[in-house]
This record gives sequence, structure tokens and C-alpha cells, in this order.
Amino acid sequence: MDFTSFLTSLGTSFFIFMVLMLLFTWLSRRPENSVVYYPNRILKGLDPWEGGSRSRNPFAWIREAFSSSEQDVINMSGVDTAVYFVFLSTALAILVLSGLILLPVLLPVAATDDNLKTQKTFSEIDKLLMGNVKDDSPRLWAFLFAAYWVSLVTYFLLWKAYVHVSVLRANALMAPGLKPEQFAVLVRDIPPSNEGQTRKEQVDSYFKSIYPETFYRSMVVTDNKEVNKIYEKLEGYKKKLAHAEAVYDESKKTGKSKGLRPTTKIGTLGLVGKKVDSIEHYNEKIKELIPKLKAEQKATLREKQQACAFAFFTNRVAAASAAQSLHAQMVDTWTVMEAPEPRQIIWSNLKIKYFQRIIRQYVVSFIVALTILFYMIPIGLISALTTLDNLKKLLPFLKSIVDIAAVKTVLEAYLPQIALIVFLALLPKLLLALSKAEGIPSVGHAVRATSGKYFYFTVLNVFIGVTLGGTLFRTFKSIEKEPNSIVKLLANSLPGNASFFLTFVALKFFVGFGLELSRVVPLIIFHLKKKYLCKTEAELKQAWFPGDLGYATRIPVDTLVITIALCYSVIAPLIIPFGVVYFGLGWLVLRNQALKVYVPSFESYGKMWPHINARVLAALILFQVTMFGYLGLKKFSSRALFLIPLPILSLLFAYVCKKKFYRSFCDTALEAASRELKEIPDMESIFRSFIPPSLSSEKADDDHFEDALSQVSRIGSFA
Amino acid sequence: MDFTSFLTSLGTSFFIFMVLMLLFTWLSRRPENSVVYYPNRILKGLDPWEGGSRSRNPFAWIREAFSSSEQDVINMSGVDTAVYFVFLSTALAILVLSGLILLPVLLPVAATDDNLKTQKTFSEIDKLLMGNVKDDSPRLWAFLFAAYWVSLVTYFLLWKAYVHVSVLRANALMAPGLKPEQFAVLVRDIPPSNEGQTRKEQVDSYFKSIYPETFYRSMVVTDNKEVNKIYEKLEGYKKKLAHAEAVYDESKKTGKSKGLRPTTKIGTLGLVGKKVDSIEHYNEKIKELIPKLKAEQKATLREKQQACAFAFFTNRVAAASAAQSLHAQMVDTWTVMEAPEPRQIIWSNLKIKYFQRIIRQYVVSFIVALTILFYMIPIGLISALTTLDNLKKLLPFLKSIVDIAAVKTVLEAYLPQIALIVFLALLPKLLLALSKAEGIPSVGHAVRATSGKYFYFTVLNVFIGVTLGGTLFRTFKSIEKEPNSIVKLLANSLPGNASFFLTFVALKFFVGFGLELSRVVPLIIFHLKKKYLCKTEAELKQAWFPGDLGYATRIPVDTLVITIALCYSVIAPLIIPFGVVYFGLGWLVLRNQALKVYVPSFESYGKMWPHINARVLAALILFQVTMFGYLGLKKFSSRALFLIPLPILSLLFAYVCKKKFYRSFCDTALEAASRELKEIPDMESIFRSFIPPSLSSEKADDDHFEDALSQVSRIGSFA
Repeated sequence: MDFTSFLTSLGTSFFIFMVLMLLFTWLSRRPENSVVYYPNRILKGLDPWEGGSRSRNPFAWIREAFSSSEQDVINMSGVDTAVYFVFLSTALAILVLSGLILLPVLLPVAATDDNLKTQKTFSEIDKLLMGNVKDDSPRLWAFLFAAYWVSLVTYFLLWKAYVHVSVLRANALMAPGLKPEQFAVLVRDIPPSNEGQTRKEQVDSYFKSIYPETFYRSMVVTDNKEVNKIYEKLEGYKKKLAHAEAVYDESKKTGKSKGLRPTTKIGTLGLVGKKVDSIEHYNEKIKELIPKLKAEQKATLREKQQACAFAFFTNRVAAASAAQSLHAQMVDTWTVMEAPEPRQIIWSNLKIKYFQRIIRQYVVSFIVALTILFYMIPIGLISALTTLDNLKKLLPFLKSIVDIAAVKTVLEAYLPQIALIVFLALLPKLLLALSKAEGIPSVGHAVRATSGKYFYFTVLNVFIGVTLGGTLFRTFKSIEKEPNSIVKLLANSLPGNASFFLTFVALKFFVGFGLELSRVVPLIIFHLKKKYLCKTEAELKQAWFPGDLGYATRIPVDTLVITIALCYSVIAPLIIPFGVVYFGLGWLVLRNQALKVYVPSFESYGKMWPHINARVLAALILFQVTMFGYLGLKKFSSRALFLIPLPILSLLFAYVCKKKFYRSFCDTALEAASRELKEIPDMESIFRSFIPPSLSSEKADDDHFEDALSQVSRIGSFA
Repeated sequence: MDFTSFLTSLGTSFFIFMVLMLLFTWLSRRPENSVVYYPNRILKGLDPWEGGSRSRNPFAWIREAFSSSEQDVINMSGVDTAVYFVFLSTALAILVLSGLILLPVLLPVAATDDNLKTQKTFSEIDKLLMGNVKDDSPRLWAFLFAAYWVSLVTYFLLWKAYVHVSVLRANALMAPGLKPEQFAVLVRDIPPSNEGQTRKEQVDSYFKSIYPETFYRSMVVTDNKEVNKIYEKLEGYKKKLAHAEAVYDESKKTGKSKGLRPTTKIGTLGLVGKKVDSIEHYNEKIKELIPKLKAEQKATLREKQQACAFAFFTNRVAAASAAQSLHAQMVDTWTVMEAPEPRQIIWSNLKIKYFQRIIRQYVVSFIVALTILFYMIPIGLISALTTLDNLKKLLPFLKSIVDIAAVKTVLEAYLPQIALIVFLALLPKLLLALSKAEGIPSVGHAVRATSGKYFYFTVLNVFIGVTLGGTLFRTFKSIEKEPNSIVKLLANSLPGNASFFLTFVALKFFVGFGLELSRVVPLIIFHLKKKYLCKTEAELKQAWFPGDLGYATRIPVDTLVITIALCYSVIAPLIIPFGVVYFGLGWLVLRNQALKVYVPSFESYGKMWPHINARVLAALILFQVTMFGYLGLKKFSSRALFLIPLPILSLLFAYVCKKKFYRSFCDTALEAASRELKEIPDMESIFRSFIPPSLSSEKADDDHFEDALSQVSRIGSFA
């Protein structure tokens, strides 16, 4: 890619960004769009425009984002989101501090040398890269020290961030507000009960004997597949009924005084079959289903009990301590762990047994490894195909279009990147499904697992894949003979792809964050749905409900960018400003989105952080190793040995972090759990919050739950 | 070694064994020796000869050993000893079950082939080895299946043993008897306390807030170095005074009516200086030291408090649960772990901080690795030197003696083995000191760590070292080029050393267990001391006090024997009967010793087992890998591939064992701790049992401990 196409790419990206910004400013001030741009505030019962968002100043949202405190973010969007901002600001700080030294030092050092003048592939960008320094020049010392500077800055800021996040987590855990999951533990792998003892009695007597004073009661988990099906059917009919009634009401207002009763066909998909009156039909169906649901609820509670349960304690310390203690002599029975939040429980996974969980984990890891390796081939093909020359060869009819100068430049600048981004959008769903198949009990945990898999995928395929892309096929045989040479090969291919990644990052931040902020796609979808589909309030709310930040894909992409930025930081310092803009703009845009748009779907109190920390460190080690390989390639190899302490230092740093912080992110520290609560906990409502909606009868009569939900200690606790 | 010297070796060993057995039968029936042969019974207040040990039948002890139940062993010698017998009987069963198939099948298969007839080094033993089977013979299938049989037998018996030991441990932990350590936890890494708050207040308020109901009180650990010194000095003088008084009393009885007052010199070592009256001198010294000790005790409790403490709880579940829970958000502060038994606390290690402990661990591992590698050289030299031809060359004056036929045979049979055994006796002390330097808080744990190091040492140096010994130096250069060939080399050297290890094992069991049973050395030492040194009862008791079983060296030697037996089981099945005799005789002799002689010095409730299990599995994997290498050497390499599943299976087995059992050997399962106690625990005496002797004043006045030993909750608990 030459300098012109690079500039074109940048310019176009910036232009699109400006357009999206203007769109945002214009659209977000229209009241009918408030549910798209301020759903989080609306759902929290706040005035969308409080604080002057609708003032004349089109950049008021920026001021608001800057003036918001961490506490605001926690209040509006939870600890996980605050932790995500710690990540963004840490990445930003790493790049800013690195850039402060690297840019003024390395750019002149590289630009005033003239190694590349003798070569053909010379362009304006390449002049600023490390490749322009002669192979045996003492100037390379500057690059070596730059690697140390970047590493030290990273250690320092990661340490500060870890301490900060740890405090955030502790504060959240010791907060006096009532969180039902802090009073419960999840008990899995319950052994078969004795003859004549129900599951409930078994669980109750077990915990009663260990915790005579703090155990409250238990809830045996049931297999809810059947009852959920009926419940969802019923809810579906209720929605359809509301819809039909809304349509009928509307038709009454317009035209005929009596209104037009809507009709529906009762055959497949409502397309064939007899036409019937919708309202009557749905009412009938609902009447049919309600007793069926009740019967199935009873049957589920009585007969479909699983070998797992939730145990409830009367105070937080008891629950936190129970979740960390070994209960049975055989480790694979009576496994006790922290209860997830009720909203994020993956019910169907709870019953999976200890060793099956382990086996599933390994099988899933194997499948993921296969996936990562299989995708290598398509990515390689894409990066080989999407050069213009190749396109012309393969699709000769494009030649006339492609040869137009303007089109050519744009295509050259964007084609490979767009291919890559579209490609990446396909994967997350599969990875999430795989993570859930591991037997993980909570959505938050599954999202973390997905994020990990996605990170491996992006780094291996996008970063290493693209970098090696062109070179790999040529030199495949040499790798086969000598696997060690892969580091050298990687180092060798890095500089050639610098401009690719510059454009990649630029595209990500201008177009990506532009789309994020302007919410053009959700806006269009909302207005289409509103106009043609939604008749009731519930349907409308569903149409604008924003979902959460989507950590499973967001964090891996961010870590990919920091990986790219770190790995190129010394070889091509020009990447640093791009990285700074990415994380700066990202922080700003997402601050706005976190405060006003997205609604968190779970809260894990920052459990994501150890993973983020580990991945930034992995990126740093990759940087250090490639730097070593790259300097080793130059006639500088003896001096490259000075880089050997760096990866060792990084591993040491990772080890110390793990030892000092990690366990407090797995378990709840008792000193946090022992803080006093704002109010005396209402154990009954805590218990009820764990009942899945398909099983909670409207009357909430207790007899209903007598089978699976223990009653033993209830009398005691009120005595 | 030829067949004659092999038989001579066996014969001599057996002769020595018979002599020692007769000695034992004769000596153990003499009443004056009862304290040497029955100290454990005497210390437990039992009649040494109860049950007919002194009857006419010289083999009564064998009947007694066989008729003793596991519960007897637990009662007399604790759970750890019972677990050790599980190990012995498991090893025995592995070898018996293997031998039942291997001996009748493999010996004829090997003996009827004739591969070695064409070679020079042929002897009667070699004929029975796998080496006698032709390289491409289908008979090798039998050996391949034998490897599978041995492996499956090992898995089956190890699994059974693990379950058995796990039950033993659970039963011991849930026993209703009062064990002070079950009510306490050890708290380390206490952060600096606030201004104006004493350490005691800090610990008390911390635990009070987390465990308002179950926390009893705390005991801050002090630096006892100085007070211990004074205390030991004082005790020494007390002993010397008692000794001097006994001498004086004796002199009164014999000869002069007034008696001769003993004198002592007050200079260096009592050899120079003024002569003074001993009794007066010691009385003076004691009078001097008592107030000094009191003052130092006060100063220690007040000023030498460390950043660690013991916390006491009013019930076992609370203590067991606290030991497993994370207390502080920063993992490296307020580390809480199980309290060791008071008698096995290593006080000076308690204060060592979290990260320092980790660093010490790595440093010690490094030193141990160096030790193992350094000893390689002397062992190699010894095994090269101790051939007769070499001896004659080096020490020509020996030639005339060595050339006598009888001497030659004996020397040839024993020299290398004796050199090896003497050599092995030097190491354990060093390894124990190194293990203690890791910062381990209890003796039991330090012994386990020592045992592990010693195992690595014996297997690496004795087994692999001796096996490769001769071959290594010759082929050193080929290994340097191709490190993978070490497996092949090992496999190649195995058969040549079979007879060495046969003699080694025979020497171990005949002479080793003969000496063990007859206790000739302790007997002689005791009688010498009794005659010339001991005057008081206390001194006499010290002279015969037997010590414990010495797991730190005993278990590694046993695992070395099972390693040898397993590795040779298929290549030279003749090793199996030797192994059977070793473990059979060992079981018998040690059963007698455990019931009558040794007094356990700590109790870890079977925590040794996971280590034993892991090491037997490591031996099995070594066997499987060498079998693979050995079969691969023959013209049978394609069929050797059938052995690849075996090491994988072993690793899988180890993994499953670890997942299913391991944690219950680290932590106390709450269901065990929740069992009811025989009596209501007397918390004050539990607390007092943790006070080190140098700090417990005779009057036991409470004010004494007001500083380091908290009093906050005592009032509460008696209210």
C-alpha cells in the first residue's frame, strides 16, 4: 500500500466519522428518538435530557462524558462497566506514556537514516519505520531502550489498575445494599439420597448439620425444559392477544365505529388453515394453557428434581465462607460454589456432574483449537485474494471499474480490511454456545470464557495470520524444517504490514465508534418496527431495548488493538497515535453509551479483570519476543540478547499479580462480606428471587413449592 | 557380576538376617532390654509383654504382627503410620498380583529362547531376562501384554488404596476426641496495625468482626529465640544438677559415709578453670537464670510480637472453614491456614512473609536441583571405581588380599552396594534443613517436602544414575547431540544392571530389616549410655527414647524399591519375588516396630498419601516409558507403539485421582469437622496447649500473657 492510498483511507474514515457525528447530534435531540439514545436513563426512571444534553451545544455529550465520575458509571451501569473503563484508560495511558518518549525519539532517529533508499519498496511511511535504520547502526540502541520503556510503563500501569479494580470489587462486595446471590451458594454433584429420603430432606439435613445456626433453607433445582416450553408458549399467546386487542382498538378509532376484529389462520406459521377471530382464538389458547402450566409446574417440582440445589444462609459471611470450603471428603460430591445472580443462571447446566464438566471443558478446548486452525486457511486465502492485482486476474470483468484511479485507491485501501471485519462478525455466537456447553453455571462466566476464546482467535488469526499471510505460503517449507524460525518469520513480516494495521485501527475507531455513537442501525430497526410491527407498549419496549455492552466481543477486539499497538510501538511508532485515538475515542463514546444507552445484563463485580490483565501481558510478551526476533534479524543479534530479561520480567509480573490478586477475584474475601447491611435481610424475598419465572405462580402460594423448595428451617428462622 | 557372586551375596545377606533374627529373639526377652524393644508400649503405660511376647515361641511377634488390626496401629502409632502400612501392603499386592501372571508366563518364554547364546556376557541369570528373547520374536507380545497387566494392577490397587486412605483420614478428622489444632487456625502476613492499636487488638477486632459468634481469642506469635536460649540453658543446668545430686547420692552409698561431693570446672567446656562444688554451682546458676527467664518472657511477650498469630474458634467447623476461606481482598495479607499440632510447629518460620515464602521455595528448589546434579558425579565415580579391577589398579597393595577367591567373591558382591548405601545416609539432614528453610510452618509438612526431595534424589541418582553409570561416560557425546536418545540409552542399560538391583534389594531387606528388627545399634548405645553416662531417670529415658518411623527417608527408599521392581518387572521378572520379600518382610518388621517401638512425633492425618500415590505413579510411568524404549530397540519397534496408550492412561489416572481426592487431603472437609465431640471443649486448655514451653510460666498466671495473648473474648465466652 502506498502513501496516497493510506491517506485516502484515513480521509474517508474521518469523513464517515464526521457524517455519523453530525447524524448523532441531529438525531439524538429529537424526542421520538430518545428511547434509542437514552434507554438506560429511561429504564432507570430518569429524565433523558437532564443535565442539558438537549442544549444548543452539539458537543454537550462530550462534556457530560468527561464530567461523569466512576461512581456515576457504577450507579448507571454496574462495576463490570467501570472495570471496562479502567481497561480503556489503562490502555490509553500505556500508549500515551509510551508515545511521549517513543515518538519524539524514534521517529527522527529512523527518518534521518537511509537504509531503505537502496530498496525498491520505499514509501513515505516506511521512512519513519525501524526498517529505515541500517542493520548495524548504533541507532538501534534507541529502539532497544524503547522496548524497555514500553514494558516498564505497562507494568506500572497494569499494577495500578489491578489495585484499583481490586478496590472497586471489594467496595462493591461490601456495599450495604441487599444482593440475593450473596446469601446463597450453588450446590452441585449431590450424591444419590438414601431410600425414603427426598432430595430436599437430604440437602436440608446435610447443611443443617454443618451450619446449624446460619443455614436458612434450600431450593432443589428442577429440570425446567418442559415447563419453560409451556410458559413461553403462554407468554407468546398473551403477547399476541395484546397485539390483536391493540389492532382492534386502533381499527375502532379509524373508520368504522365498531372496528375490525383481527383474524388469524391457525395452520403452519399462520399462513394456511381456517381463518378465526384472533382475540377469541388467543383467549381460548391461554385458557387451555394455564391449567396445563400449573400441572406441569407441579409435576416439575415433584418429579424432575436434579442433583443440585441452592442453599440459602442468613448472613453473607456464612455464604461466602461456604462457597470456598470443601464440604465432602470426596471432592467430586457436594461441590459448593458461589451462587450466580438469579438473572444470569444457566439452569440447564447446573445438573452437569463434576467429571463431565471437566471432560466437556477439554472437548470444547479441542473444538476451539480446531476452529482457530481451520480459520487460518480462509483468512490466508482472503489476504492473498484481496490485492487488486489478484482481483483483476480472478475477475477480469472488474478490470474496467478497478482501473478508475479514485475507485482503485479506495478499493486498495479498504478491501482487505472490510473482508476481515465482516469475517470476524461471524464467530462470537458459536464461541458463546461452545462456552455454555462447557457446563458453566452463569452467563457472566460464559461471556468471560467466550471472550478468552475470541481473543485467541483474533490474535492468532488476525494479527499473526495477516502478518504471516503473504509470507507464509512462500516459506512454508522452511518452517516445516525448522519450527523455531516462526519467530524470525513473524519479526520479518511485521514491518511490511504496518500500514495495513494502521488503516485497520483507523477504520475501527472512525467507522466503528462512529456507528456505535450514532446508533444508526438500531435507530432504523426501531423506527421500522415501530411503524409496521409494534402495537403494544411491551412490543415497543422490546424494539428499543438496547442490550448490554457485549463484553464477549468488545474486549477481545480492544485487546487485539492493544496487541497491535504494542507489537508495532517500537518498529513503527506511528501506530501509537492511532492507538491513542482508538482508546481515547473509545473511552469517550462508550462512556456516553454506558451512561445513556446500554443496560447491563449481569454483574460479576469485575471478575473480567484478571483475564484482561493476562491478555495485555500476553500482548506485551508477544511484543517483546517479536522485538527480540526483529533485532536478531538485523546485524545486531548480540545486542538483541539484552532483550531476553523482558519476557522473563513479564512472566514474573504475571506470576506476582496472580499470587497477590487472583484469588480475591475468584472468591469473596470474608472481610468484605462481613460488612454490615443497610437493612435486615428479608430471607423469604431473597429465596423467592431465585425461583425461575416459569415456576413462580402468580398467587405465590407456598404449598406450591413444598416439594422442591425446602421448608424445614423457615419455621425456625421466624421463631 | 556372575551367578556365583550373586548367590554368595544372597546367601551372606540371608545369613546375616538369620543371625540378627536370633539376636532379636534372645535379646528382646530380657527384661533389661524392654525399654529398647517395647518403648512405645511402655510410654503408653502398657505392659511390654502383654499378649505373650515373652512366651517360649520365638516367633510370637510374627503372630502378633499378623493379628494386629489397622485400628491397633492407629491407636498405638497414629493415622500416618496406618497410611504407611496401606502403602506397604499396596506395593506388596501390586507385586504379588503382577508376579502371579508374569513369573509363570515370562520366565519360561525367556528361558526357552536363545538370543544370548551367541553373545559373550551370558550367565545363568541373564538367561531368564527379556534380553534372551530374539529381537524379532513374536514372544515379545507376551512382554508387551505383561506391561499392560502390571499397569492395570497398579491402577486398580492404587485406586482402592486412595479410597481407603481417604476414609481413614475422614474418620480420624471426625473422631470425637479433642484435638486442639482442630479449633485453631494459623494467621500469617498480618498487615501493620494502625497507630495506637496493639497487634492483639488488631487481630481480635479483625476476627471478631468476621466471626462474631465463633471466635474465641487469639495468640500473637512472638520471636522466642532469646527466651528459648535462656530456657534451654536453665533446663540444662537443671539436668546437670539432678545428675550431680545422683552422683553424690551414689557416692554416699558406696564407701565413705558422707559421700563425695562432685566438682566441676567452670572454664571452657568444663575442662579448664577453677574447680567448684557442682551442686552449689548449678544451684547458683539456676537461681540466677530464673529471674532472667521471667524478665525475658515478659519482654518477649511485650516487645517481640510478630505479624502472625493463632486464632481460636469455639467449634471445629468454624476453624476448618476459616482455614479454607480468603479473608482479605489482598491475597498476600491475612493468610489463614490450618494450625499445625502444637508439638510440630516450627515457630521461627511462622513470621516469614507470603512472597518471601514463595521466593524461598524457588531458591530451595534450585539448590536441591544443583545438589541432585552435583551428586551425579561422585555416584558415577563410585560406580566406576568400585569394580575390583579398578581397585587393584588404584590401590595395588590390596592385590594380595583381593586375589583370595572367597574375599574376591564377597567384595565383588557387596562393594558397590555398600558404597551406595553409606553414601545415601549422608543426605537427609541437609534436605530437611533445606525444606525447613522454605518457610514451612510444621514439621510434618517439612518431612513431606524432604521426602519428595529425597525421592527425586534416589530415583535420579541411584536408579537412573547407576543404570546409566557405566554407559553414560562412553556415550556422553551422542547424548549431547541427541537428547531424545536418553530414553533409548536408559532402556539399553537396564538389563545389564538387573543383577545389581537384585542384590541391592536383597541387601536392603535382609540386612536393612534385620538391623531394624534387632535394633542392635540402639541397644548398644543405650547400654553404653546407661553404664557410663546416665544417672537420673530423665537421662535414662532420653537414652532409650526411640524417635519416630522417620518417613523422610523411609518412604523414599521404599518408593525407590517399588520403582526398581516396576521398571524391571517385565524385563527381568526375577525382581518381583525380591520386591515381594522386601515389602512383605518390611510390612511384618515395621508392624512390630510400629506397635512396640517407635513413637510418632507428629500426626498429619494421612497427608503423606497423595505424595506416595504420585510417586508410585511416576515410577509406573518411568516403567512404561523405558518399556517403550526397550521394545523400540528390538526389531519390534512398530509393535512398541502399542505401549503409547499406557503413559497417557497413567497421566489420566493421576489427574482423576488429584481431582477426586487431593483437595480433601489439603483441607478438612466440613462434613467431617461437623461431627459431634465427646465432650464440651475446654477452650482455655486448648488455648494453653499452644503456648510454647519456654513461655509457659510454672504458675500459669494469666497476667503474664496479657500482652501477646488476647483476653478480649475470654470474658465474653464465660459470661
